[in-house]
Amino acid sequence: MEPLLHQLGQRIIRCAPRTLICRKYTHGNGNGADHPSTGSSHTTPVLLVSRLYQPANLREVGQESRQAGEMTCKSQRLMQQAGLIHPSNPGCYYYLPATVRAMEKLVRLIDQEMQGIGGQKLDMPSLCSAELWRSSERWDLMGKELFRLQDRHGVDYCLGPTHEEAVTTLVAHQASLSYRQLPILLYQITRKFRDEPKPRFGLLRGREFYMKDMYSFDVSEEAARHTYDSVCQAYGRLFSRLGLRCLRVQADAGNIGGTLSHEFQLPADIGEDRLLVCGGCSFAANEETLAPGETDCPRCPAGPLAESKGIEVGHTFYLGAKYSRVFNATFSNQQNRPVVSEMGCYGLGVTRILAAAVEVMSTEEAIRWPGLLAPYQVCVVPPKKGSKGSEEGAAQTEGLVHALQGGLPRLRGEVVLDDRTQMTIGRRLKDAVRLGYPYVVVVGQGAQEETPRFEVICQQTDETMFLSKDQLVDLLGRVETV
Amino acid sequence: MEPLLHQLGQRIIRCAPRTLICRKYTHGNGNGADHPSTGSSHTTPVLLVSRLYQPANLREVGQESRQAGEMTCKSQRLMQQAGLIHPSNPGCYYYLPATVRAMEKLVRLIDQEMQGIGGQKLDMPSLCSAELWRSSERWDLMGKELFRLQDRHGVDYCLGPTHEEAVTTLVAHQASLSYRQLPILLYQITRKFRDEPKPRFGLLRGREFYMKDMYSFDVSEEAARHTYDSVCQAYGRLFSRLGLRCLRVQADAGNIGGTLSHEFQLPADIGEDRLLVCGGCSFAANEETLAPGETDCPRCPAGPLAESKGIEVGHTFYLGAKYSRVFNATFSNQQNRPVVSEMGCYGLGVTRILAAAVEVMSTEEAIRWPGLLAPYQVCVVPPKKGSKGSEEGAAQTEGLVHALQGGLPRLRGEVVLDDRTQMTIGRRLKDAVRLGYPYVVVVGQGAQEETPRFEVICQQTDETMFLSKDQLVDLLGRVETV
Repeated sequence: MEPLLHQLGQRIIRCAPRTLICRKYTHGNGNGADHPSTGSSHTTPVLLVSRLYQPANLREVGQESRQAGEMTCKSQRLMQQAGLIHPSNPGCYYYLPATVRAMEKLVRLIDQEMQGIGGQKLDMPSLCSAELWRSSERWDLMGKELFRLQDRHGVDYCLGPTHEEAVTTLVAHQASLSYRQLPILLYQITRKFRDEPKPRFGLLRGREFYMKDMYSFDVSEEAARHTYDSVCQAYGRLFSRLGLRCLRVQADAGNIGGTLSHEFQLPADIGEDRLLVCGGCSFAANEETLAPGETDCPRCPAGPLAESKGIEVGHTFYLGAKYSRVFNATFSNQQNRPVVSEMGCYGLGVTRILAAAVEVMSTEEAIRWPGLLAPYQVCVVPPKKGSKGSEEGAAQTEGLVHALQGGLPRLRGEVVLDDRTQMTIGRRLKDAVRLGYPYVVVVGQGAQEETPRFEVICQQTDETMFLSKDQLVDLLGRVETV
Repeated sequence: MEPLLHQLGQRIIRCAPRTLICRKYTHGNGNGADHPSTGSSHTTPVLLVSRLYQPANLREVGQESRQAGEMTCKSQRLMQQAGLIHPSNPGCYYYLPATVRAMEKLVRLIDQEMQGIGGQKLDMPSLCSAELWRSSERWDLMGKELFRLQDRHGVDYCLGPTHEEAVTTLVAHQASLSYRQLPILLYQITRKFRDEPKPRFGLLRGREFYMKDMYSFDVSEEAARHTYDSVCQAYGRLFSRLGLRCLRVQADAGNIGGTLSHEFQLPADIGEDRLLVCGGCSFAANEETLAPGETDCPRCPAGPLAESKGIEVGHTFYLGAKYSRVFNATFSNQQNRPVVSEMGCYGLGVTRILAAAVEVMSTEEAIRWPGLLAPYQVCVVPPKKGSKGSEEGAAQTEGLVHALQGGLPRLRGEVVLDDRTQMTIGRRLKDAVRLGYPYVVVVGQGAQEETPRFEVICQQTDETMFLSKDQLVDLLGRVETV
């Protein structure tokens, strides 16, 4: 009798040549008549590694995928090798499917945190008229960093790197905004453009990137500072949920303007920002905000500040009336008189957070993700086709995957099966470790014991355990997903 | 004693000044300590209409929101008046929060259908190098429709209106693609750019818009035609789930190229395409594919074709080797020899589907959405503050909302409470009807009867019912969401 997984492979090809999923492993109502597109929560597909468009897996005939572009840092190298990104023009990347999954998870997290403090999501045009940017005097100020173009009528536009002008003019256009309706917090998560002189470090410094930009409108400076603090706290919660140690440092407001500004920095050797951090209190600053030679903490007597480098992943600005005055964004106060709003703006580098997380969490050889962002949570590795015990192993795999799908709705779409059973377990395990699935489950010798045991490699903690099916389901049932 | 809703209003302001949600109505573990950002499925917030950034609601002091831009069709007028979109540059719109919600739902539906046939989602750069477009000879062919720009080094780019060049070169770069790994179906849902000579009809013909573009790579013409059919079927399912009657017509391949092409058209008076449809068989064609004067069906003897106008919402192309030959996108066949892939490409106008649905489903005065796309499913309208029975009404509202939140997880985030209780029920009801919530629940006189009854207006079917709380929960429990 042929190994079950092999039979399975043939069945897949016969039933569903164009799908990535293995019907055999769908749970509940997942019979042939149940179309996957119904989105029924009873049908949980298992994805097959051989079918995923992730070039690290596309090497059946033995070659590694080509590496293009100069490798300027670890995250770039690892992400290209793993088939997560592929270079296009300088500073521009294809985000391949696994990266899109990670990014969609990050977007859901950001949505939760921003909506938790009252943020409302909109989407503003990328094409920004020169007229708008001339009003704020940034058309000239931004220099070569702005991508500029003309339409067929010769009208000037730029591709928005940030949207203070656009959002302020939107809010200014709403007639009759009452003080009772403030604060208003509007945000978007869209592609931004910046013509970097030296794009490098993969997704860390690109010319096209995804950014979350939020803008707040308040009735007073006091209220605006309250909003500012609430956004900073939401950023803190986000990084804490990601398991990333993030420093909030005082920062320069740069081209954006305003009088109060902080950066959220992930300490990392390749960071382009130099930070000075106090060991005695919470003071931390970007070096550019301190006087030259200033080395002692201005807030406590703890002595000299420690130097560190950081990757900027977020930036907050209290803007005051800088933009609202120019575009006349007003509200009616209690006396029904128009008053200019107090604004803030708040950025998060979305694609940059992905790459920065890979940069700070990975080893030189293996990607590690914040658990919530991993493209897939679980990879199941069954025995090599034709090896000793591979039939029992295939049966065990089937039962296991069924149990995971049946019992754990949070793992829906999160389990991949490494069906490349022409390869040894060892070789596939090496791939799985390198790609950073948080949980790798090997169906090896132990699965044939009287009480079958599965080898589980928890990559976040670097632990290996041998668990029964029930224990494994219990462990994976506690995995958080978003 | 003050009406409960009024007390509630004060409580909201005290506890959570910056959130849109009313803690009082959260269910389950939703006590004060439970932060909304945890995303716990036990906490289902109720959104307050007075806090939604949807300018139709922002008129406490009595003015209607300003109407900017020329109104060229019904959907544009309705969407602007309702605070769904706001005009920016010609052919560019702000998508306001309710539209973003509708679009995210449409994106989830499209994801389900595309992934159901094996599609994998990636994301390609907007900046496309001239070099790439010169290879396919489209740099010149596209003329003024391409937005073109130069970077700081004088290198030419266009803003991608479509991505055949980009995706084909990506797939060509993957070393060692085996015939066993085909078909590959890659798609993205991103913003596209086209410098329309005459942008008009709101989101129907803009210069910036969201499009789903999928590209397929197959081993043979036969396999590619099979993929082509499977995408067409997925499109059919999508429109059927949206409740939109969509015609598939034979079409011209235009600038994209290839030998087989179909458009998916929604019949509508403002449609820019002229269609000829057979009454006797399934034949339908864009007029431009027929010989001048051709009025009889070429497939059956039913006689003259009927004329119709349509809005193109989808387009499919069988491309053959047009792009794969230029960029050398090959796979290894069974004999391990390189063979050029057979390609197809498949577009869906995402923002266009939203506007086209509003165009064909709405009345002149009131927006109607496909049920699955409505930004919110339910609007609850409690009595006017201080009116007869408003205290009991407020208590009934509380109980009702609690029951909806507690019992119906699919309505999570889908219920809004029109807390503008300084306005009469009638005035708020008029807004709710105009904005097109599929279900409007009025807590009126009937709620004070011994067996309280709620007035439920089902806007999709134009039915009004008076239901008990249990009947209402039962009805709304059957609402499909995505």
